Amino acid sequence: MTSQGTLGVAVIGTGRMGADHVRRIDEVISGARVAAVVDIDEARVKTVADGIEGAVPYTDPAAAMADPAVDAVLIASPGPAHEAALLTAFDHDLPVLCEKPLTPDPASALRVMEAEQKLGHRRVQVGFMRRYDADYRRLKALLDRGAYGRPLMLHNKHRNADTPPGFTDAMTIHDSAVHEIDVTRWLLDDEITAVRVLRPAPSANAAEGLSDPQLILFETAGGRLVDTELFVTCGFGYQVGCEAVCEGGTARIGDDHGVFVNTAGHWGGAITPGFVERFEEAYDRQVQHWVNATRRGEVEGPSCWDGYAAAAVCAAGVRAQESGERVAVELVERPALYR
Amino acid sequence: MTSQGTLGVAVIGTGRMGADHVRRIDEVISGARVAAVVDIDEARVKTVADGIEGAVPYTDPAAAMADPAVDAVLIASPGPAHEAALLTAFDHDLPVLCEKPLTPDPASALRVMEAEQKLGHRRVQVGFMRRYDADYRRLKALLDRGAYGRPLMLHNKHRNADTPPGFTDAMTIHDSAVHEIDVTRWLLDDEITAVRVLRPAPSANAAEGLSDPQLILFETAGGRLVDTELFVTCGFGYQVGCEAVCEGGTARIGDDHGVFVNTAGHWGGAITPGFVERFEEAYDRQVQHWVNATRRGEVEGPSCWDGYAAAAVCAAGVRAQESGERVAVELVERPALYR
Amino acid sequence: MTSQGTLGVAVIGTGRMGADHVRRIDEVISGARVAAVVDIDEARVKTVADGIEGAVPYTDPAAAMADPAVDAVLIASPGPAHEAALLTAFDHDLPVLCEKPLTPDPASALRVMEAEQKLGHRRVQVGFMRRYDADYRRLKALLDRGAYGRPLMLHNKHRNADTPPGFTDAMTIHDSAVHEIDVTRWLLDDEITAVRVLRPAPSANAAEGLSDPQLILFETAGGRLVDTELFVTCGFGYQVGCEAVCEGGTARIGDDHGVFVNTAGHWGGAITPGFVERFEEAYDRQVQHWVNATRRGEVEGPSCWDGYAAAAVCAAGVRAQESGERVAVELVERPALYR
Amino acid sequence: MTSQGTLGVAVIGTGRMGADHVRRIDEVISGARVAAVVDIDEARVKTVADGIEGAVPYTDPAAAMADPAVDAVLIASPGPAHEAALLTAFDHDLPVLCEKPLTPDPASALRVMEAEQKLGHRRVQVGFMRRYDADYRRLKALLDRGAYGRPLMLHNKHRNADTPPGFTDAMTIHDSAVHEIDVTRWLLDDEITAVRVLRPAPSANAAEGLSDPQLILFETAGGRLVDTELFVTCGFGYQVGCEAVCEGGTARIGDDHGVFVNTAGHWGGAITPGFVERFEEAYDRQVQHWVNATRRGEVEGPSCWDGYAAAAVCAAGVRAQESGERVAVELVERPALYR
Repeated sequence: MTSQGTLGVAVIGTGRMGADHVRRIDEVISGARVAAVVDIDEARVKTVADGIEGAVPYTDPAAAMADPAVDAVLIASPGPAHEAALLTAFDHDLPVLCEKPLTPDPASALRVMEAEQKLGHRRVQVGFMRRYDADYRRLKALLDRGAYGRPLMLHNKHRNADTPPGFTDAMTIHDSAVHEIDVTRWLLDDEITAVRVLRPAPSANAAEGLSDPQLILFETAGGRLVDTELFVTCGFGYQVGCEAVCEGGTARIGDDHGVFVNTAGHWGGAITPGFVERFEEAYDRQVQHWVNATRRGEVEGPSCWDGYAAAAVCAAGVRAQESGERVAVELVERPALYR
Repeated sequence: MTSQGTLGVAVIGTGRMGADHVRRIDEVISGARVAAVVDIDEARVKTVADGIEGAVPYTDPAAAMADPAVDAVLIASPGPAHEAALLTAFDHDLPVLCEKPLTPDPASALRVMEAEQKLGHRRVQVGFMRRYDADYRRLKALLDRGAYGRPLMLHNKHRNADTPPGFTDAMTIHDSAVHEIDVTRWLLDDEITAVRVLRPAPSANAAEGLSDPQLILFETAGGRLVDTELFVTCGFGYQVGCEAVCEGGTARIGDDHGVFVNTAGHWGGAITPGFVERFEEAYDRQVQHWVNATRRGEVEGPSCWDGYAAAAVCAAGVRAQESGERVAVELVERPALYR
Repeated sequence: MTSQGTLGVAVIGTGRMGADHVRRIDEVISGARVAAVVDIDEARVKTVADGIEGAVPYTDPAAAMADPAVDAVLIASPGPAHEAALLTAFDHDLPVLCEKPLTPDPASALRVMEAEQKLGHRRVQVGFMRRYDADYRRLKALLDRGAYGRPLMLHNKHRNADTPPGFTDAMTIHDSAVHEIDVTRWLLDDEITAVRVLRPAPSANAAEGLSDPQLILFETAGGRLVDTELFVTCGFGYQVGCEAVCEGGTARIGDDHGVFVNTAGHWGGAITPGFVERFEEAYDRQVQHWVNATRRGEVEGPSCWDGYAAAAVCAAGVRAQESGERVAVELVERPALYR
Repeated sequence: MTSQGTLGVAVIGTGRMGADHVRRIDEVISGARVAAVVDIDEARVKTVADGIEGAVPYTDPAAAMADPAVDAVLIASPGPAHEAALLTAFDHDLPVLCEKPLTPDPASALRVMEAEQKLGHRRVQVGFMRRYDADYRRLKALLDRGAYGRPLMLHNKHRNADTPPGFTDAMTIHDSAVHEIDVTRWLLDDEITAVRVLRPAPSANAAEGLSDPQLILFETAGGRLVDTELFVTCGFGYQVGCEAVCEGGTARIGDDHGVFVNTAGHWGGAITPGFVERFEEAYDRQVQHWVNATRRGEVEGPSCWDGYAAAAVCAAGVRAQESGERVAVELVERPALYR
C-alpha cells in the first residue's frame, strides 16, 4: 500500500466504462487513487491520464501491473482481452475488479478459475454491479430473511429505449440477459439448470433480423421458474424490474418505487424509520460538494444569509406559536455579499 | 493544502452529528481526511480520533484551527457554540461547513454575517442538507426551469415517529420546521414574510404540554402561500414530503416515489433514460466496496465462479434462442475455493 | 306506490343535472320510473319527457306533485327555487331528494327545517353525493372504526381544470368548497366552528378578479383542523382528494388509488379479498348491458364462438399441464354467424 | 315483452351464482324483473323465489321457458347442464345469458354453435364478465385505438388467497385460466394457437398433488406471446392483473390503480377530466339508495340539518374570503328531529 493506505489502482481500458471508472476513482471513491491508466491507443491513454495527479499512462497492462505504485487492477477492456489481463494480475498477485463478462465463454472462464485456484485464494471480483443497487439489496435482504417464505418464481423486466447499430440476438443474451442471469443466481442462491427463449412477432421498431421483445425462461436446481421480458427497443426509457413470488407474498422492485410488497391482505412498502436513513445520502453529498468546492477555492451552498433568514423566521414562528396570530418576519436589508 | 491536494478537515464537536461526520470524511468522502477532532470532553475526543490515521485530538477549537494540517473546518458542536467557532475560523480565514443552525437567534447570526463581510468574501456553507437530497434537487430543477409555470403554493409534510424526552413546542420550530423554512426559501427563491401556527387538539400520543400536530403557514414576499403539517409523534416512521402547486401542474416528492407530477391530463413521473442514470450509484458503491475490502486485504462480491456460471448460461441461452427449444445448462462441479 | 312497487318520481328542473337524473332514473336505477318532469320552459320539458314512457311533462311543480302517479320528488332546479318546491312537497308529504344546496342561505334553510319539523318526520335527503362515493365511504368506515385512532386533521384538495365564464370568488365557496364542508362534517362527525380563507398571489390562468388558488381552513367543535386547497383553474383535470391524519396513521383517497394508508412502519392499502368484491361491478354491468341489448332486440357480448374457443384452449391447456410440452390448439373454421 | 317493456327473466340454477343473479336482477338492474326461478331442488327454488314479487318457482327449465312471462333466460346451473338448457332456449328462440363455461368441452360447444346457426341469428351471450370490468374496458379501448402501437406480449397475473377442498390442476385451467384465455382473445382480437404450462416446485401451501403456482404461456395466430402467473394459494388476497407490452409503450391494470402506462419517457396515468366522470357512480348510488329507502318508507342520507349547516359555513366562508380574517360560524341549536 502507498502512504496513508490509499489504494493505487491501475485502470485497464479507457473506453466508455474505463474512462468512467477513472473519473469515479478520482472524484468519488474514498481511499483510492488512479495510479496507472492502460490502453493500446497511446494518444487516448495520455489524454485520459493527463488531468489525474499521479496517474501514469501505459500501453501494456503487464508494465502497469509491474509499477510499484499499483496496488490493485480494474479491468474495463473489451471482454476478449480479459483472460490475458486476469492471468497477468495473478502473476503479480494483485486484487482485481473485472467488468463483466469475466470472459466471453465458459471455456476461458474455466481457465481463469483454474489459475485463481492455483494462487490458492480469491483475487477477483466480477463487475455484476446490480448486487450493489439499493433496491436489489433490499430485495435480497428480504428474501434472505424469508420474510414471505420461500421464493417460487421471479418475473424480470429489462427494457431499453433502443439498441446501437449492429446489435444482434446473441448480444441480447450476452449484454442484457447476463444481468438477469446473475441477479437470478444471486437473489435465489440457486444455479440455473435450463433455458428457453420464446420469441413473439418482433416489434416494427426492431432492426431487421433482431427478435425483440423476447421472453427468456430459466429453471433452477431448486425448482424455481424465472421469466424475463427482454425488450430492447421499447422507446420509452430504461427499466429494470424484478418481482419475487414467494409462498406468502410477493416483492417487486423497479424504477423509483422502492420495494413494493403484497402480503397478508395488504400491498405497499416500508416507511423510512428516521432522518438518518432518509437523508444519509444528502449528508454525504453535502460534505462531498463542500470538499470539492473548497479544493477548488470556491464557496457554494447555503450562506450565512440563509442561516440568518432561517433564524429570523424561527423566531417569528415561536411567537406565532405562542400568540396564535399572524406574525410578520423582520429581516435586515440583504448585504451585497449575499446577493 | 496538503500533498496530493487532500483537504485536512477539523471536525468540531463529537456528538452524534460530529462523530458521524468524522466517519463520513474518513470512509466516504473523496479528497478529504480528518486532520483534527475537537471536543471539550478530552476522553471522548481521544476515543473518536483514535482510529483515524493522522487525526489529532484537541479540546480547544482555536488550537485546532491553528494546526497547519487543517485546511477547513466542519462545525458540529451545539448551536450556542457556533458563533465563537465561526469567528475563530474567520480569524484563520478557513472555509467552514457549519451544521444548522448557523446560530440560535437572529442577533448572533447578524454578528456572524458582519464578520464575514469584513473578510470580504464568503467562507461559510450552512448545513441545510436537504438542498443536496436527490428528490429535492429534482423538484428544484423542475421549478427553476418553469416546467409547469410559476409556483403558487407549497404543501409540506414533516412527520417523525416520536420525540425525545423534553421536546418542546419551540423545538418543533427550531429543530423541525427550520428545514421547511430553508426548503421554502430555496425552492421558491423567495423570502418568508409572515408566519401563522394553527394547533388542533393534540394527539393523545404527544407528551404533556406538547402541541402536536401543528399546521404552520408561511407567506412569502412573492405572494406564495406555504402550509406545513408538522407531526412529530405520528408513530409510523419518518416522512418528509413537499408538493409544489404551479400554474399548470403540481409536483410532489416524498419517501420512495421520485417526483410525482400532475399536468396536462396525466399523473406520473419520468422514466430513467439509461442504465448510467439507473445504476450510477450501484457502480459507485461497487467500486467503493471493492476498495474498502481490498484495503482490508479481503475479497468479496461476485467471484470467478459467478462469472463462469453466467458465461455458461449465456452460451445455453444463445443455443435456446437459435433452436426455440429448452436447453440444459452444463456446469463443472463447483471448486472448493468458490463454495 | 304504483303496481309492482315501482317508485314514480317527479324530476323538477331539466338543466344539466335534472336531465341527467331523468336519464339515470330511466336507464340505471332499479325500482323507480320517471312519472313527471317539470320545468318552466314548456318546450324543453316536453322534449325531455318525450322519450320516457309514462313521463308526464309539467310547467308547475305543484301540479306535478298533485299527480297521483308521483310518489317522490327529485329537486334539481336552481337553488333559489328549492325552498318553494320543498314546502310544496311537504304539503303533499312526499319524500324528496334535493340537489345541493338545500337553499342558498342559512335563513331559508332554517325555514325549511322548521316546516319539516312541523311534519313531524324527515322527508328530505340533500344531494351531497360524495357520501355515496366508494372511496369516501371506505375512508369514512376506516375513521368510524377508529382504525388509526382519533382523526386530528384533514388535508383536502379540490382541483378543477377551469371555470365557466362569470365564476366568482363567492362561487368557489358555494359551489366548490361546499362539498369539502359536507365531507368534513360527515367524515369527522363534527361541526365546523370557524373559517379562514388565505389567498396567495393568483394564477395567471385565473380570470380577472378571481382569487385562485385559495387555502381554506376550518376549525371544528372537536378541535380538528381542516385545510383545503381549492384550485379551480389548475388546467390538468379534476381531482378531489382527502387525507385524514389520525393519532396512529394517515389515510388518503384521491383519483384512482383507493385508500392509501401510512401506519406502523408501512405505507400501502388493502388487497381485495375475493373475486366477488373485485368483479361485483363487472357482474352488474354485464347483466345490465345484456338486459339493455335484449330490450332493444339485439345480441352483444361474448358469443358461442368465444365459449367454444375458450373450451378448446382449456382442453389444450390441460394436456399441456399433463405433458409439460407445447400443445397446439385445434379450432374449426369460424362460422359466418360469429365473424 | 311485458307491459312497460320490463324484461321477464328466468334464472336457471340457484347456487351461489344463480342466487346472486336473482338478487341482482331484483335489486340492481334497471328494466328487468325475475319472472321465473328454476332448480331441481324444489325446496330451495321455492325459498329463493319467495321474496321476489312475480317470480314463479320451477323445477324444470323447459316449463319455465314456456311461461309467457319469460322473455329471456339466465343460465347459472352447473356446466354439464348448460347444453340442454341452451338447446331448450333455442327451441323457444329466447335470448340467453349463459354463465361460463358455455359447455365443459369443445365437442358440446360445437353442437351448441351448430344449433344456434340453425336458428340463423345469435341468441347467446357467454358470461365472461371481465369484458365488463372498468379497468379491462379502458385497457381494451387503449389497445383498440393503437395508442402505443401494436401489442406484442401480455403479462397476466391471477392470484387467489386459497382454494376450496378438492381443487385440482385441471380446475386451475377450467375455472381460473379460462378467464385469462378469454381476456387474451378479446384484448388482442386474436386466436390462441398453442399452450405451454410450466410448473416450478410447488408452494408448501398448495394441497397435496396441486401444482401451484404455474406459468401458462399462450401463442396467438398473430404472433403474440402471453404469459400468465396462476397462483391460487398466494394467501394475501385476490389479484388480477394484465400488462400489455406494445411497440411504443406498456399499459397495466390491476387492483385499485386504473391504467398505468409507460410511454415516451413517462410512467403514469390519466387524470379524470371532470366531476361527472369522477362522481358518476356516486350519483347513481345516491339515487339508488334514496329509491330503496323510499320504497321501504324510510329516510336516510344527509338531512336538512346538513343542508343548513353547509349554508351557514358557506356564509361564514364568503365573509372570511372578503375579510381575510377568522370568521366564527353561528349555528342554531340542533333540533331533536336531526339528532
